[in-house]
Amino acid sequence: MKIREIAELVQGELVGDAEMEIVRVALPELAGEKEIAFIERAENLPENVKASCLIVPENFAKELHCSIIKVKNPKLAFAKVAGVLYRFQAPKKRNQTAFIAEDAEVEADFIGAFVSIGSKTKIGKGTAIFDNVTIGSDVEIGENCVIFPNCVIYDRVRIGNNCVLHAGVVVGADGFGYVRDEKEYVKFPQIGTVVIEDDVEVGANTCIDRGALGETRIGAGTKIDNLVQIAHNVRIGKRVVIAAQTGISGSTVIEDDCVIGGQVGIGDHATLKSGAVIGSQAGILPGKIVRAGVWWGTPVQPLAEYKRLNAHFRNLERFKEEIKALKEKLNELEKLIS
Amino acid sequence: MKIREIAELVQGELVGDAEMEIVRVALPELAGEKEIAFIERAENLPENVKASCLIVPENFAKELHCSIIKVKNPKLAFAKVAGVLYRFQAPKKRNQTAFIAEDAEVEADFIGAFVSIGSKTKIGKGTAIFDNVTIGSDVEIGENCVIFPNCVIYDRVRIGNNCVLHAGVVVGADGFGYVRDEKEYVKFPQIGTVVIEDDVEVGANTCIDRGALGETRIGAGTKIDNLVQIAHNVRIGKRVVIAAQTGISGSTVIEDDCVIGGQVGIGDHATLKSGAVIGSQAGILPGKIVRAGVWWGTPVQPLAEYKRLNAHFRNLERFKEEIKALKEKLNELEKLIS
Amino acid sequence: MKIREIAELVQGELVGDAEMEIVRVALPELAGEKEIAFIERAENLPENVKASCLIVPENFAKELHCSIIKVKNPKLAFAKVAGVLYRFQAPKKRNQTAFIAEDAEVEADFIGAFVSIGSKTKIGKGTAIFDNVTIGSDVEIGENCVIFPNCVIYDRVRIGNNCVLHAGVVVGADGFGYVRDEKEYVKFPQIGTVVIEDDVEVGANTCIDRGALGETRIGAGTKIDNLVQIAHNVRIGKRVVIAAQTGISGSTVIEDDCVIGGQVGIGDHATLKSGAVIGSQAGILPGKIVRAGVWWGTPVQPLAEYKRLNAHFRNLERFKEEIKALKEKLNELEKLIS
Repeated sequence: MKIREIAELVQGELVGDAEMEIVRVALPELAGEKEIAFIERAENLPENVKASCLIVPENFAKELHCSIIKVKNPKLAFAKVAGVLYRFQAPKKRNQTAFIAEDAEVEADFIGAFVSIGSKTKIGKGTAIFDNVTIGSDVEIGENCVIFPNCVIYDRVRIGNNCVLHAGVVVGADGFGYVRDEKEYVKFPQIGTVVIEDDVEVGANTCIDRGALGETRIGAGTKIDNLVQIAHNVRIGKRVVIAAQTGISGSTVIEDDCVIGGQVGIGDHATLKSGAVIGSQAGILPGKIVRAGVWWGTPVQPLAEYKRLNAHFRNLERFKEEIKALKEKLNELEKLIS
Repeated sequence: MKIREIAELVQGELVGDAEMEIVRVALPELAGEKEIAFIERAENLPENVKASCLIVPENFAKELHCSIIKVKNPKLAFAKVAGVLYRFQAPKKRNQTAFIAEDAEVEADFIGAFVSIGSKTKIGKGTAIFDNVTIGSDVEIGENCVIFPNCVIYDRVRIGNNCVLHAGVVVGADGFGYVRDEKEYVKFPQIGTVVIEDDVEVGANTCIDRGALGETRIGAGTKIDNLVQIAHNVRIGKRVVIAAQTGISGSTVIEDDCVIGGQVGIGDHATLKSGAVIGSQAGILPGKIVRAGVWWGTPVQPLAEYKRLNAHFRNLERFKEEIKALKEKLNELEKLIS
Repeated sequence: MKIREIAELVQGELVGDAEMEIVRVALPELAGEKEIAFIERAENLPENVKASCLIVPENFAKELHCSIIKVKNPKLAFAKVAGVLYRFQAPKKRNQTAFIAEDAEVEADFIGAFVSIGSKTKIGKGTAIFDNVTIGSDVEIGENCVIFPNCVIYDRVRIGNNCVLHAGVVVGADGFGYVRDEKEYVKFPQIGTVVIEDDVEVGANTCIDRGALGETRIGAGTKIDNLVQIAHNVRIGKRVVIAAQTGISGSTVIEDDCVIGGQVGIGDHATLKSGAVIGSQAGILPGKIVRAGVWWGTPVQPLAEYKRLNAHFRNLERFKEEIKALKEKLNELEKLIS
């Protein structure tokens, strides 16, 4: 990519050489020839910039030997450039060890070693299925997806276009539902499915269970970190972000544009309204409806309230002493009067 | 299954056509011909029931066009019907890619692609081992089990009959035990084993470590959700339920019929007495003995106490103001007297 | 190993037969012929010791039929003996199903079934790669490592000597980093790498993400339990211990000799100074610097403070009553005066 093309891509103001070729991104203090870096603030400028191009904030005033591109949001611009420079291009290749059902319709460009693909499954073009991935029957996977090694996709799951599943992801395992008999747990049927819409990324070893009777759904553009648990019949909206090790119980609804921290626990049948932001390690009770805004703690409270209560909590020592002082004073007073 | 057979299975009172064939279960509002659904309460009846058969509570009084079966616990009855309609029947088939040690005794009906089975391992009839599963040496797996793709079963593990391991489960990895030397951590031997009794179901990506010297044991009929951690030498009783992302530390004992929520942390050498119910995200200290009843919070308290203390906690603001008011009043009084 | 050799290894005082051969370790109450056991305190001695050798504390005064070895730390001595008796020796064998790139330099002694090894990857001698493991391109793995089944090692990861990765570990998946645009999340490049130094053990299904631009590093001698999440650009020092299900957010630094309990959550850009000990389920806020010492709770506090505050918390009931009593007394006094 020429620097000129980069400036166009990020709609930035270019100062310096426009024709040089950029091939890699790097950290500003380590970047060298043919590399591009970014700084979020002018004061973050390293001493000896050796990058060929630097993305800087609009108010950046210094002169540099390298080309600079001024933009409103340098980090975003840098991410966009990297997105083009590192666009994953699956090699057109099928490992001869892969075991693909005869009636599967596999257009995928890349199929790795020891991949297993079940009957009637359809996989779109541009998609890469890495080594040791197991895909069941009647699955549909769209175009330009990347399924990293050792993922398991159960029967009848639907995955859209441009999705990324990192290693060890399990999609479509049975939900956790039983009915207690007098003497044992009887399994409630887990025969629904999972639908993952377009542009979803799922982190390593995350589990997304199939619906009991209906579906579990992950909305378009949603990003899920590692080791997350998504139970049966959960419905997650568009552009939701979920950090690592969070667990979402059955039938809970997360509306569009929510942001959920790490290690959060969400009870079943809860609802997070669009725009809710949940702090890490928070706990949300079953059935709870959480409005837009920032929430914290277990059970969740608005962040401001959480902070106020915690401040009081830290004052308990003082409360105790004040109560003691009041008692003593009162006793003195009493003596004085009597 | 004929409706008559279903009514017999669930010991319900049948009203309507007894001979129609039912082939699938479904949600009441979506069920159609040859499908059976259930409602837990009469008021949950959807407007236009099109199911061929509906399981309803005993006090259900309306008349419907379809057959109905009245039972005490409709959800349980429905689960039992689904259990018959969807009974997993492993196809009798061995994928030619599977790598099975010559001295393994494998009666399993189904062996998927890229399955590896070690020396002297025994697997019972009716069992299905799905693709990319790795089973070590000297393992014993009973009859009618289902081992989903990409599970790993280390050497010498014992698994009973009718067990289900979902994708990515790891059974028998080394426990986490070290002894600190002056200069490093020396590994304590992790050479015990894991015993999983009959009718156990284990969720995706859950880990059950082998005993250090003795065994880790999971009792019959116990159900474990996804991403659960069970450490070395833990002993879990019969019919225990453990929700997702819970962690149980070494040598802890969970007695029969306990129910443990999600993201619970249990310290080492603790004991949960039979009938203990632990709320999600609770924390149990090492060595703690938890009696039957409902427990909540970190460190766990009886639910009633947890609620009372939390109510006080939310009153801290008021405490503060009351202390302030008392102070002022006392000051006034003091002035008055002096 | 002869008992004499064992006594030398652990620098203990041997009483009894020195020439007998020991082949296994066992629990003191179960150990029999040719087996060695240990007791940490004299009062833990079982009634009928049948072991051939028992490791005991220095002050142990009883006479036994078997040989005894007196040492300062019996558990440590026992662990060292087991380390020799059970030293893992990879069989020299390559399963013919393994798929190894032609330009990979694989000296590893053992390669299991359905292993995939990418282009230009180097693996040292004495190392064992178990079944269904997927190793990317340009990876380097040292000598005498054990990579258990179904692990995934992404491209360009570096692993030192004597490391153990348990089943399902994922090393080098993309970190979780996005920049929010007006209308979607744009992926921040995750093109760094992971460096795991010598003598590291990683538990089953744990995830260690690659650096965004730089590296994620795990120091020599560090031990990590199951289902742990280590985010991009985290730097973990030497001899750190991390228990199960803990999550460490991006760019956090854990210095040497820290001990971290289970289910701990650590925010991004935090620093744990050398010698910090973090209690299970604790929560550390982003950017927080945690000094040496024992810390507990969310947000973390020094253990002593945590205990004091929790004691107050449990006294809230009493505070309430005392405030009430003060009010009443004050009212009486007021009446008395007026």
